[in-house]
Amino acid sequence: MSDYPNLPPAYQNLHSRMREAALIHSTASVLHWDLEAYQPPQGSAWRGEQLAWLSGQAHRLTTAPEVEAWLHACEDAGLEAGSVAEVNVREWRRDYDRNAKLPAELVEEFSRVTSTAHAVWAEARQESDFRKFQPVLEKIVELNQRKADAWGWNTCRYDALMDVYEPGANSADIAQLFSELGPQLRELIGPAAERSARVPADLLAGHYPVAAQQAFNAEVLAAIGFDTTAGRVDTALHPFCTSLGPRDTRLTTRYSEENFLESLSGVLHEAGHGLYEQGLLAAEWGLPMGEAVSLGIHESQSRLWENHIGGSVLFWEKWLPAALKHFPNLAGHTPEQLTAAAARVQPGFIRVEADEVTYDQHVILRFEIEREIINGDLAVRDIPARWNERFEQLLGLAVPDDRRGCLQDVHWSHGSFGYFCTYSLGNLNAAQLMATARQQLRGLESELALGSYSTLLGWLRENVHQHGRRYLPQDLMRAATGSPTGISAHLAHLRGKYLS
Amino acid sequence: MSDYPNLPPAYQNLHSRMREAALIHSTASVLHWDLEAYQPPQGSAWRGEQLAWLSGQAHRLTTAPEVEAWLHACEDAGLEAGSVAEVNVREWRRDYDRNAKLPAELVEEFSRVTSTAHAVWAEARQESDFRKFQPVLEKIVELNQRKADAWGWNTCRYDALMDVYEPGANSADIAQLFSELGPQLRELIGPAAERSARVPADLLAGHYPVAAQQAFNAEVLAAIGFDTTAGRVDTALHPFCTSLGPRDTRLTTRYSEENFLESLSGVLHEAGHGLYEQGLLAAEWGLPMGEAVSLGIHESQSRLWENHIGGSVLFWEKWLPAALKHFPNLAGHTPEQLTAAAARVQPGFIRVEADEVTYDQHVILRFEIEREIINGDLAVRDIPARWNERFEQLLGLAVPDDRRGCLQDVHWSHGSFGYFCTYSLGNLNAAQLMATARQQLRGLESELALGSYSTLLGWLRENVHQHGRRYLPQDLMRAATGSPTGISAHLAHLRGKYLS
Repeated sequence: MSDYPNLPPAYQNLHSRMREAALIHSTASVLHWDLEAYQPPQGSAWRGEQLAWLSGQAHRLTTAPEVEAWLHACEDAGLEAGSVAEVNVREWRRDYDRNAKLPAELVEEFSRVTSTAHAVWAEARQESDFRKFQPVLEKIVELNQRKADAWGWNTCRYDALMDVYEPGANSADIAQLFSELGPQLRELIGPAAERSARVPADLLAGHYPVAAQQAFNAEVLAAIGFDTTAGRVDTALHPFCTSLGPRDTRLTTRYSEENFLESLSGVLHEAGHGLYEQGLLAAEWGLPMGEAVSLGIHESQSRLWENHIGGSVLFWEKWLPAALKHFPNLAGHTPEQLTAAAARVQPGFIRVEADEVTYDQHVILRFEIEREIINGDLAVRDIPARWNERFEQLLGLAVPDDRRGCLQDVHWSHGSFGYFCTYSLGNLNAAQLMATARQQLRGLESELALGSYSTLLGWLRENVHQHGRRYLPQDLMRAATGSPTGISAHLAHLRGKYLS
Repeated sequence: MSDYPNLPPAYQNLHSRMREAALIHSTASVLHWDLEAYQPPQGSAWRGEQLAWLSGQAHRLTTAPEVEAWLHACEDAGLEAGSVAEVNVREWRRDYDRNAKLPAELVEEFSRVTSTAHAVWAEARQESDFRKFQPVLEKIVELNQRKADAWGWNTCRYDALMDVYEPGANSADIAQLFSELGPQLRELIGPAAERSARVPADLLAGHYPVAAQQAFNAEVLAAIGFDTTAGRVDTALHPFCTSLGPRDTRLTTRYSEENFLESLSGVLHEAGHGLYEQGLLAAEWGLPMGEAVSLGIHESQSRLWENHIGGSVLFWEKWLPAALKHFPNLAGHTPEQLTAAAARVQPGFIRVEADEVTYDQHVILRFEIEREIINGDLAVRDIPARWNERFEQLLGLAVPDDRRGCLQDVHWSHGSFGYFCTYSLGNLNAAQLMATARQQLRGLESELALGSYSTLLGWLRENVHQHGRRYLPQDLMRAATGSPTGISAHLAHLRGKYLS
């Protein structure tokens, strides 16, 4: 008996094959999660072999010639437009072609070069010497250009690389957005930093035991709707969110006993990712209709809960009494003080330490440089000079060395180009989705003031989560908010929060 | 270039195939470990599918026809007697034949019957009604008899089932041992229980926070040599030890804040298993030369550290000062008092709650009944009567109902027959190994008094751990202690500890 009696056998074969691949990928996710959260150091060599075996199995199954034949048969069968099956087939085709178009020797060379690049980068960063990283980075750039050419592109080679993380992304559109966003942020930074400086640095000084932070975070997580019967929170050096199956979403965070806001905002961020994962269609989990559509949409969910909910005065009006029970030294503080302490603005050199106002400037810088490099408009050897020049324009600071400049990020050593812009797309999407939700949902503010988040979560489920990869990200934004990703909602949010 | 230039290509093929199987099995172990220690409840359905997929892959790879051909080629090649390769081939053949001799329809029926039996057993136990379990247990017994016949046996059908857990085991020998052990334990129980009753029940009453228990247990674990750069301790409802790779051994335990001795003895028990795993040859991990030889030897390692080390006055003479730092309410107690409080003897109905003196009586009972059933000397319907009669002879108590009698254990519902006796073999082996180590190692007592365990661990590594599956368990015991498993060392240990 077939699970899909009205669909062609080729669909049933594809579905069963891709579900098998999802089992393998999610098994690898369990191993990765453990590696980051629990594995003792000596276990990592064997773990690497386990992961390589799983990866080989999944690759073999998803790139086999019969997959191509099944795809053709499904495409010829005329599946109902907009049906789950049609969306799955369209996206399986996208994934298959992306793999099939890369020559095996390019994949191998990419893997070989990037496996050694990380150590070279780490040493170069340690010594703050870009020249040490330059030769391998030149090779990585060349390999990425060859990848882009193999995949094909219309107006701009960089688009082909961005498409991996943000399907359908057009770098000319994003460049246009960023060229408007940058100067307006630049104007905002000074006044916002000045206002921040008036909040005493030791306002929240105290000792915040990990167990108390975990208890408070758990209350907040439950309130926003993260389901801990289908997920959990662990500790890891580099916080992340991963799904190990359709009803098993793991968050990780880290704790500073001097500053409880670090784990709180971290958990809200990862829980935003986690709520998206928990909102995907469980029955299609691991298949396109049950998969997140892009990093820029994923990041919009994390930023929405971290900054628009957790970073608001409304949040602290609701949660300060509960926080006081766990952290008695907060007594005497107002919700406004907590909000301000959690939202300090100060330009700095390091992206991962940047506040909400300056963060996008770091991203714009990387986006511009990556695009110029991949499109052949900038030579790798000229990166440091270009970086430092643009950094001063965007953030008003002179970069003292490459360690705190163009060597700070790990991404390029992994071979990743086209990833950075999704961080800012996430910020822009978050603000735009939140503004639309506020317009559409009567009484939302009063619900949020009471600590009731189910209406908001329901709206996100309906407008974002349940769609999986049905729409391209920009079509999803149009459907949910009436227009593609723009900068006005984000700027209005920042001005309201940091200047009013 | 070959890894084994002097070995036939068939060996290289087998080695690579079995190493792949080890990667898969150990991946399943990661998933099982997470399932027991961390997985949120809703994740279990998908986890079941992941595990089934892995199990199918491993089965396919290890039972393929080419494996048989490679085994034949290796057997014909005349590998050097006693070499690693020869041991591996011999044991691969043992494993292969065990799988190959079972008809597929028997495996399927066994899997089908046991997958429903657990729920039937749980309900029968809940209602204390053996008649409810009887029909499915009759089927399970019949299937086990068919398994034993498919594998083949010489003097006794039950031997074939025991061989899975204890290779080479001879149930007539074990029956002889147990027939001597039972009456001698029976004589010991009364006086030991009487002496125990003089230790006040509230001697260690107090509150023992989990974090303090974890800190103290970690000190003890480090001292006995458990390497936490290649292992760790987590919390689980049913404590266990599992290896996820050659240098990644996970222990689990559970904590009672009223009784710190529960987690301490639990951790020492599991660490005993863990030290065996950490002492296996890492280069051959997952292959016979790097695998534990039997459950009876594995359990000897856990019992040795739990009872012979952790349960001794010497242990508390060393560790009481350290324990006091974590548990201030222990102030004023003597090492003798702690040892006595940790070693209370009182006959009871439940095996898993039994003390060191009464435990083997529970095992003897099960061993006798299983052997009679499988050999056709006892009908399943007569189990309750037989159980209750023998229980009273062995432990002097009248069993009030089947819930506290023959329905208490989960093993039969899983289809496991032949497992129970390995618990007592573990106790006997532990005492015998410990007695031999004491004879052979000068100054061992003074080292143990100082909390130095490396000489003892080194002796276990040399005489037990490093051999993997090189020897059958009884040959290993002969080589290590001069004689096969006997009862005298265990009885001497119990008499010394509980009567002197």
